Amino acid sequence: MSRITGRLIGVGVGPGDPELLTVKALKALQLADVVAYFAKAGNESNARRIVEGHLNGAEELPLLYPVTTEIPKAHTAYRDAIADFYDVSAAAVSSYLDDGRDVAVLSEGDPLFYGSYMHIHVRLSQHYPTEVIPGVTGMSGCWSSAATPITQGDDIFTVLPGTLPEVELERRLADSDAAVVMKIGRHLPKIRRACERAGCLDRAIYVERGTMTNSAVMKLTDKLDVAAPYFAIVLVPGWEERR
Amino acid sequence: MSRITGRLIGVGVGPGDPELLTVKALKALQLADVVAYFAKAGNESNARRIVEGHLNGAEELPLLYPVTTEIPKAHTAYRDAIADFYDVSAAAVSSYLDDGRDVAVLSEGDPLFYGSYMHIHVRLSQHYPTEVIPGVTGMSGCWSSAATPITQGDDIFTVLPGTLPEVELERRLADSDAAVVMKIGRHLPKIRRACERAGCLDRAIYVERGTMTNSAVMKLTDKLDVAAPYFAIVLVPGWEERR
Repeated sequence: MSRITGRLIGVGVGPGDPELLTVKALKALQLADVVAYFAKAGNESNARRIVEGHLNGAEELPLLYPVTTEIPKAHTAYRDAIADFYDVSAAAVSSYLDDGRDVAVLSEGDPLFYGSYMHIHVRLSQHYPTEVIPGVTGMSGCWSSAATPITQGDDIFTVLPGTLPEVELERRLADSDAAVVMKIGRHLPKIRRACERAGCLDRAIYVERGTMTNSAVMKLTDKLDVAAPYFAIVLVPGWEERR
Repeated sequence: MSRITGRLIGVGVGPGDPELLTVKALKALQLADVVAYFAKAGNESNARRIVEGHLNGAEELPLLYPVTTEIPKAHTAYRDAIADFYDVSAAAVSSYLDDGRDVAVLSEGDPLFYGSYMHIHVRLSQHYPTEVIPGVTGMSGCWSSAATPITQGDDIFTVLPGTLPEVELERRLADSDAAVVMKIGRHLPKIRRACERAGCLDRAIYVERGTMTNSAVMKLTDKLDVAAPYFAIVLVPGWEERR
């Protein structure tokens, strides 16, 4: 008994500005039977907020993260709870696909580049016809609103999580032409020291809320606080002096 | 004698599929007085081809690269000729801006990420009101059409030019969770060897003409040729086994 299943579509919704959606993403949202997105219980989904005004009466399927604040993140129990949650989320999506309905799963930025959509993709893409629509990444949004050329020619470019130990950050910053440090949060002072020791502090740029209307862009040397939002990033441009 | 100048707008046109233009890029193209783009004399501009069908009667300003085939690329004379060309191109753009006309400069992919627009940006953005509209990068187009999750969580991600020496490629591939190697061309056998020695050959994926209708995606181990197109890329996914 074969039947026609629906299509799974990973939709990149870009870095925040609704106008940075692609034409292809807009069309997919308007044709989808179901629009799914991850969200924290009680919080609006960022991806859902970006596509507000572009939905066309599709059924919505919010995938609500479990409350795990009482479990330490390094603990196996935390990882198990999250993996269980992704299993349950994928099962919810697949029940619609089995009914022959197309499901668009929203992802901030670009779905396959640090995107939450991947948790659905790795569980379902072998079993259903799947399409991934790339999006403008959060970091592209940041260096564009900072009007800062980031890489050129044969530059070696590195993306680093701010959670790395200070010596690792320093070593890798010194070993790259251009870099982005993500997930700043309470790691800000450590990242500033690593940039200084790697010799790139003078050209490092701090960006908060990249393409939002309330974005903040400044030299990292001017950002003197001890902490920053988790989603702030630091840009280390590779293009310097070259024309 | 002050006068109102036009605006310089760097427009990312994405990786190739015209539907991967953003809504913001489309609007900018339709409002611009002049649309400028780099091209090789006698060749159609890729960026111009992508926006075909979205231009609204704007004046076009092709910026034609000089013929430099007789000058070795490593030679100072080559670099001087190219820098002169960018100076002349920027002067052509600024003459329109001085006339109060808005100029959109097309850039494949994302303008400030290895984009040709930067040569105009670094010469003019200090002197004219400037906006940069980010685009979907070529590499996002590639991993999306390959449906390959590239990075997740705290992955360290590196972009490497295929021109690097073999030992450098090997060292950096082994030192990254995920990577992209660009500008493959005649470096293909070297890149394959570097992946093997770095322990990532089995998961490396070769992509040609990312989001074009005639794209080719295969395991790097299945791409046995000694050369590839210059714009082919190799993806080394970071996400492996994790769920």
